[in-house]
Amino acid sequence: MSKILVQKFGGTSVGDPERIKRVANRIKSYHEKGYQLVVVVSAMGHTTDELVDLAAKISTNPPKREMDMLLSTGEQVSIALLAMALHEIGVPARSFTGGQVNIVTDGNFSNARIESIDTQRLNSHLEQGHVCIVAGFQGVDQNQNITTLGRGGSDTTAVALAAALKARECEIYTDVDGVYTTDPNKVEAAHKLDQISYDEMLELASLGAGVLHSRSVEFAKKYDVVIHVKSSFNYNEGTKVVSENLIMEKLKVTGVTLKSDDARMTIGDIPDKPGIAAEIFEVLSEKRINIDVIVQSTGKDKLNTISFTLPVSSVRDAKEGLEPLIQKWGAGTISTDENIAILSAVGVGMKSHSGVAASMFKALAEQNINIEMISTSEIKISCVISQDRGKEALRLIHTVFGLDKAT
Amino acid sequence: MSKILVQKFGGTSVGDPERIKRVANRIKSYHEKGYQLVVVVSAMGHTTDELVDLAAKISTNPPKREMDMLLSTGEQVSIALLAMALHEIGVPARSFTGGQVNIVTDGNFSNARIESIDTQRLNSHLEQGHVCIVAGFQGVDQNQNITTLGRGGSDTTAVALAAALKARECEIYTDVDGVYTTDPNKVEAAHKLDQISYDEMLELASLGAGVLHSRSVEFAKKYDVVIHVKSSFNYNEGTKVVSENLIMEKLKVTGVTLKSDDARMTIGDIPDKPGIAAEIFEVLSEKRINIDVIVQSTGKDKLNTISFTLPVSSVRDAKEGLEPLIQKWGAGTISTDENIAILSAVGVGMKSHSGVAASMFKALAEQNINIEMISTSEIKISCVISQDRGKEALRLIHTVFGLDKAT
Repeated sequence: MSKILVQKFGGTSVGDPERIKRVANRIKSYHEKGYQLVVVVSAMGHTTDELVDLAAKISTNPPKREMDMLLSTGEQVSIALLAMALHEIGVPARSFTGGQVNIVTDGNFSNARIESIDTQRLNSHLEQGHVCIVAGFQGVDQNQNITTLGRGGSDTTAVALAAALKARECEIYTDVDGVYTTDPNKVEAAHKLDQISYDEMLELASLGAGVLHSRSVEFAKKYDVVIHVKSSFNYNEGTKVVSENLIMEKLKVTGVTLKSDDARMTIGDIPDKPGIAAEIFEVLSEKRINIDVIVQSTGKDKLNTISFTLPVSSVRDAKEGLEPLIQKWGAGTISTDENIAILSAVGVGMKSHSGVAASMFKALAEQNINIEMISTSEIKISCVISQDRGKEALRLIHTVFGLDKAT
Repeated sequence: MSKILVQKFGGTSVGDPERIKRVANRIKSYHEKGYQLVVVVSAMGHTTDELVDLAAKISTNPPKREMDMLLSTGEQVSIALLAMALHEIGVPARSFTGGQVNIVTDGNFSNARIESIDTQRLNSHLEQGHVCIVAGFQGVDQNQNITTLGRGGSDTTAVALAAALKARECEIYTDVDGVYTTDPNKVEAAHKLDQISYDEMLELASLGAGVLHSRSVEFAKKYDVVIHVKSSFNYNEGTKVVSENLIMEKLKVTGVTLKSDDARMTIGDIPDKPGIAAEIFEVLSEKRINIDVIVQSTGKDKLNTISFTLPVSSVRDAKEGLEPLIQKWGAGTISTDENIAILSAVGVGMKSHSGVAASMFKALAEQNINIEMISTSEIKISCVISQDRGKEALRLIHTVFGLDKAT
């Protein structure tokens, strides 16, 4: 097995000089065990926000190329300081910007995608026993322009480096112990998972429950990189995100989530003719509104109803986009309900175990919790329910699918 | 004449968002006149100091490579913000790190020297009408490691770019109007010079009176770049630093300076044998102490006395270095006098005009100002006098050499 280990520390872990020293000590302990270490770091604490504020004082709409030039300095400060901290405790370390280790991306500033990584320089330093500290979140395009990778970018850098270097695994350090069956703040009985598949992790991430950003998980899945989510506050084993076929006992349900910041919007009394739904979702997509559950039904008189969920914060934007359509059609009504929650169960085992949806519906019905909308994928079932009963329903389903920790 | 103009703005000029906007407006006015602009900027205000403090919290002796990685972010923030400010007022601009415009240096971290600049990328952007904003103070070595150029580094970047691009001139913006005949805070009659030669500027810089760092002037002299020192607060002509043969009327004396932060150290009663002076100045050089005026005299009994001036802040260091020598010789005494000032007159005209030194000595003698030490170069005369009479002597010499402004 490869001796190369990639470790990623987020902005909180390197938030101040003391924390940077603590991270350095952790790295030292792995270095002493004989690992060849590549460490990816984010910008310190709120640095990125501060840089964004600074830019806002100068321009309301700064060119993305220049924003990337600006924001990439945050990670550059972190890598230099961490390399100094390692040097101070006798660990040979070198810091590298994304460009210096040839993380080449497309030219899509502020949301670039990694196209290639040339590992020659890193390998040469690893062979010399150096810890390589790499700036997360950044790369360069074909013309050496600095690019950034968008949200969760440092995770993506870490996973991409692990893939390119064929590392044994990619450790992502966070402020939680790993991935839980559900939010432990909402359900006391939640427990940490030892492992989870890429697809389950992706579903959880899209439900806002994941500690990892979707893009890094997609990358890991594509290149078969084991992601190990661990706490930066202790040395416990965390949760390994792995390929589905490495998971021996496939749970029917791995995790359950509750999303309470969505609203349901209903477009009623619209003419039932082809292309209406497309028109609606084109408008919403242009406004970059995240739609989750969608239900369409035909009533009497050939009049249609389309309901969908969207973030509460996008309701106004959505209305502004849809009202002109209704005027154009000469028919239709818009109503919204913010008192909803989306309850979801995720698990690769659903593919082979039937009856998961039925168990969920039955359990909710027995408690008189009304299901207003349903949406399913191969490994996920989502139910829209009343927000007032959200937490109760979450606890119920957690228990029903056998996720409560042993007491 | 080339349409390319290099402009350099220091840290004070880009100290906050409002000042950055002001600099952008100035650049716009030149852009509208049809110049092709390359703009070099330093880090904002106290950014560099803040980064140094941050490093000090982590390491007492950070590796220089990592310090350069850290400090270079300061300029990177400035260039991005200035490019945004230009974009905001409709001027097409692109920011570039030192590495992105191929400013290649040696590998001497924290004090690197520029070895080459490949101007292809800059020329291509200039031809497209873009203002090119380049980070001062930084480059990359052959292996793409980030290097910094040491004190006055941004001036050097600007001059080097002007040389490489064959620019019409290199404007250096400061908080003063240009180069004065002497410090206007000390001598009211001081006036701004229209032009000054490289060698005169170098002498003034080494006397601590120049607004430019020596290295940038040396660079300009070597590549025949006209440096134009201007104020960032108005649009007046400043002072042009040019080749001596471009100066038609060579003044006997161009500027006079008074340096009051030096002390005189005297090593007395030392054996007169070869190599003693070398030993002394080797020790001082190892401790990186700046020596200015040196006088050696042989007394009776073949015992020598060596006097020299050094910064007051280096007196303790010098003593620590010299005391072991005296122990080794078994002879010698050290005494210091901090109540001195070094009065200097600088001018290329001295080469062809005789009697400059004599005029200076005579004027001082007439006012009963005692000259304690004398040192001369081809274009400079320095006299060590009592500090108490420094300002009086400065005004006197300024008048004697006809430098007082017309009233």
